[in-house]
Amino acid sequence: MTNRKDMTGADALLAALADEGVTVCFANPGTTELDLVRSLEREERMRCVVGLQENVCTGGADGYGRMTGRPAATLLHLGPGFANGIANLHNARRAHTPIVNLIGDHTSWHLPYDSPLTSDIESLARPVSGWVHRIAAVEQSDAAGREAVKQSLARGGQGATLIFPADHQAHTGGEQVALQQPAADVGAEVPAAFDPVAAVQRLKAANRIVFLLGGGGELSGLGVRAQKAVQRLCAALGATAYAETFPSRSERGQGLPAFDRLPYFPEPAREVLDPADLVVLVGALPPVTYFGYEGHPSLLVPAERLLKLAAVGDDAATRLEQVADLLGAVEVAIPVAVLSPPEEGPLTPARIALALANELPERAIVSVEGGTCGYPFYAVSAAARPHTTLTNTGGAIGQGLPVAMGAAIACPNRQVVALLSDGSTQYTIQTLWSLAHEDLDVVVLIAANHQYAILRNELRRGGAVLGNRAAEITSLDKPRIDWVTLAQSYGVPGGRATTSSELTALLRQAFAKRGPMLIEMAL
Amino acid sequence: MTNRKDMTGADALLAALADEGVTVCFANPGTTELDLVRSLEREERMRCVVGLQENVCTGGADGYGRMTGRPAATLLHLGPGFANGIANLHNARRAHTPIVNLIGDHTSWHLPYDSPLTSDIESLARPVSGWVHRIAAVEQSDAAGREAVKQSLARGGQGATLIFPADHQAHTGGEQVALQQPAADVGAEVPAAFDPVAAVQRLKAANRIVFLLGGGGELSGLGVRAQKAVQRLCAALGATAYAETFPSRSERGQGLPAFDRLPYFPEPAREVLDPADLVVLVGALPPVTYFGYEGHPSLLVPAERLLKLAAVGDDAATRLEQVADLLGAVEVAIPVAVLSPPEEGPLTPARIALALANELPERAIVSVEGGTCGYPFYAVSAAARPHTTLTNTGGAIGQGLPVAMGAAIACPNRQVVALLSDGSTQYTIQTLWSLAHEDLDVVVLIAANHQYAILRNELRRGGAVLGNRAAEITSLDKPRIDWVTLAQSYGVPGGRATTSSELTALLRQAFAKRGPMLIEMAL
Repeated sequence: MTNRKDMTGADALLAALADEGVTVCFANPGTTELDLVRSLEREERMRCVVGLQENVCTGGADGYGRMTGRPAATLLHLGPGFANGIANLHNARRAHTPIVNLIGDHTSWHLPYDSPLTSDIESLARPVSGWVHRIAAVEQSDAAGREAVKQSLARGGQGATLIFPADHQAHTGGEQVALQQPAADVGAEVPAAFDPVAAVQRLKAANRIVFLLGGGGELSGLGVRAQKAVQRLCAALGATAYAETFPSRSERGQGLPAFDRLPYFPEPAREVLDPADLVVLVGALPPVTYFGYEGHPSLLVPAERLLKLAAVGDDAATRLEQVADLLGAVEVAIPVAVLSPPEEGPLTPARIALALANELPERAIVSVEGGTCGYPFYAVSAAARPHTTLTNTGGAIGQGLPVAMGAAIACPNRQVVALLSDGSTQYTIQTLWSLAHEDLDVVVLIAANHQYAILRNELRRGGAVLGNRAAEITSLDKPRIDWVTLAQSYGVPGGRATTSSELTALLRQAFAKRGPMLIEMAL
Repeated sequence: MTNRKDMTGADALLAALADEGVTVCFANPGTTELDLVRSLEREERMRCVVGLQENVCTGGADGYGRMTGRPAATLLHLGPGFANGIANLHNARRAHTPIVNLIGDHTSWHLPYDSPLTSDIESLARPVSGWVHRIAAVEQSDAAGREAVKQSLARGGQGATLIFPADHQAHTGGEQVALQQPAADVGAEVPAAFDPVAAVQRLKAANRIVFLLGGGGELSGLGVRAQKAVQRLCAALGATAYAETFPSRSERGQGLPAFDRLPYFPEPAREVLDPADLVVLVGALPPVTYFGYEGHPSLLVPAERLLKLAAVGDDAATRLEQVADLLGAVEVAIPVAVLSPPEEGPLTPARIALALANELPERAIVSVEGGTCGYPFYAVSAAARPHTTLTNTGGAIGQGLPVAMGAAIACPNRQVVALLSDGSTQYTIQTLWSLAHEDLDVVVLIAANHQYAILRNELRRGGAVLGNRAAEITSLDKPRIDWVTLAQSYGVPGGRATTSSELTALLRQAFAKRGPMLIEMAL
């Protein structure tokens, strides 16, 4: 092991992380993390991005990890500070994003006294962490940091959480040692060998095939290469293909096929899946309904009709190309989709979608949260300039804005757009400050309908009438939040659009300059 | 059991809660709580207060429970929604506040399919709940609701968490039945019999006595009766008395003794406690340092020097009066403290404290969070008109504003003041919307020093120099948040004070009218 006997535990840990390529830390530290803060003075390789609430930090790490495939660190304060970041770690878990969480804890000998900030951190951490480790001695700091990075990259990407008592952060150790309690063996996962010939046989035997493409990095089902190979397969097999409903990351736009997403509600999803005698999973999980709906099975496709062509984290692109080659599937010209301009008039979700699709710069990253504009945008975005889409993978809302922030840290030369709804954005509204503080090139679009529309849609399912109290509980209308002054109060310039042409003008203004801007889109 | 066979499980649960006196629900529901939302149409006894983020709801329930001694309910969405409210449930746990948490979960038969929003709710709930129960059948709904209320009042007050699958909410059951798995027996706690004669003997044998008074309801150590009895005891015994450092609720002001709080840092706390040969706990826990500090013991007073006169939840007032009577301790006149007006000039924490103490209306409730003004205010508040103080009991920040909101719901005829710092208030800034939505009489005072001052104080302990990166990480100065426009964007009128006279004028304006107002106090 590295000799780091003159370093504090905090120094050794940060050096180990930086050695392993972790160079961004999304931080909201407290008193039990101060030696890690002191170490940041010395570890110049680590960039520190402050968030004013912890879901800003964990969502930021999620966005960063999705765009780079590498973990960022988070730095969070004890159990309660960590708890404030759990919701976006839940989303990150569903996105298979590698993240290294650093949680300071009380000095080890202080823990038994149950002082006010003491809590069961492990119990809080396990539901969102593939691996949880408590550093038991300063000499473990180096090994724990390296192991955490390794663990974060296991199983296609996951949360690796280190609990780091304050005394072990502060003290200097002797020789660094290996972890006393070795972690669960990551090597135990032996990836299933891929048999392209068997896959071809299954495909040839099927009559009606649906490909379901999972999101992720460049080699995932929704990367450029995989989508092109799927397009060949669809043409050769008479198959259709869908993106999973909430992909962590997908490539989209001109030059790529216009695959739809699998619908959210069970009825239209079943219209896609029920007629298929083979559903091919390309880095997507077996499709299940989002919630349990009476009269619909949770598991939408039984195992015997599924073909798992690639798991999360596998090189789906190469597998698809092998299969396409074996089938003799030829290249298919992808038609140039034509994008009409939005009709002039008061904003509607469809007009917002068209205005954004028309103005979106090439290589933009669009973080989408909220159903109001998310679905309409997807419906037209195949005709936009090539771009990357990030969606809310785990359903914990307040994810879209922090993920956009993290993507902007990861990709400083790309325009980032956050296409959001007013209800969900409130959960992590403090992100606006970090956008201004870091001067990030993020354009925040708020579809302001002043309600929790998704809940009203669910309440009205089956033709039910919305009750008075249900209407009140799902209303954000009294008072209406003024998003423009809200943004300005955090140092983010803002504007309001009520018509298609106003929105187009504001989008052009926002994309023409560097730095953050918020546009309230009145609905 | 009640016959509620025509009711849905959600109806039965809400009716049981209302029957048991739970009539306020702080809610941020989602799709798995919609049958509880539907039931709110029918259960008119239950008031519903919407929060835009879950720590708003849980902090609101904490403030409500502290002021009424009765539980409010929270209504939260699955594991991630609950997680967003954990930090303030942690504070509520330390305050011994009764709270009934309702968490919707997936339809029971949907859970095995691990759909996006599925998580280990129990693992998240246990660290902040004295009791966690999953409703296993619709017929349990009534009994589970009643048991949750009972559990929330056990052990001096605690969180009782019900996980309620969506199908059991929606279905109508037959006869309601008792819980199949009886809860841990609350009756097992046999309160220690109080022996006032033995207590008198310990007190008489001691030379130097310090009383440590715990916060809570009217009969707690920091209620009016107990404080007056302690004042008699101090005079008779030559003892001194301190409030615990962070009391959940305490009475303060003219007509009450001017007891200090036990200092936060170990050095001054030890100056109080080390010379005492007897420390009398009156509903306070044995004092421990807030964090572990090298060179200081965690447990500040060893067991042999402690006398536990009353535990949390005991009737401390009656015990103290019994002891005082046995000792023949006579009534002591409490001198009328004189409050000077604040010196005119730029705002300082001391001037803010004096301005507020001078203007504070009688029976105001002051929710204090943040060290910048909290300590200076306490130093002068004994001379203010009689009022109630609520502090941050658990150290999870973002508590002061929601607790103020909950107190205002509990006590609509009392002026509520939230005395806050800029750093901590950001964590639950969305509370402003609920203040406006409910038109609550809460004056929000923000000490805006644009930094995490507590961390800088800790970093500078022992004369250390603040490093450049540490300064950056603890800075909120780039950009400065504009608190006045921030409040206005949420529908809360705001003003800014830079001098003592400006602050006094704004306070008078705020206290003269109903409804919320925010004052940024520039430091």
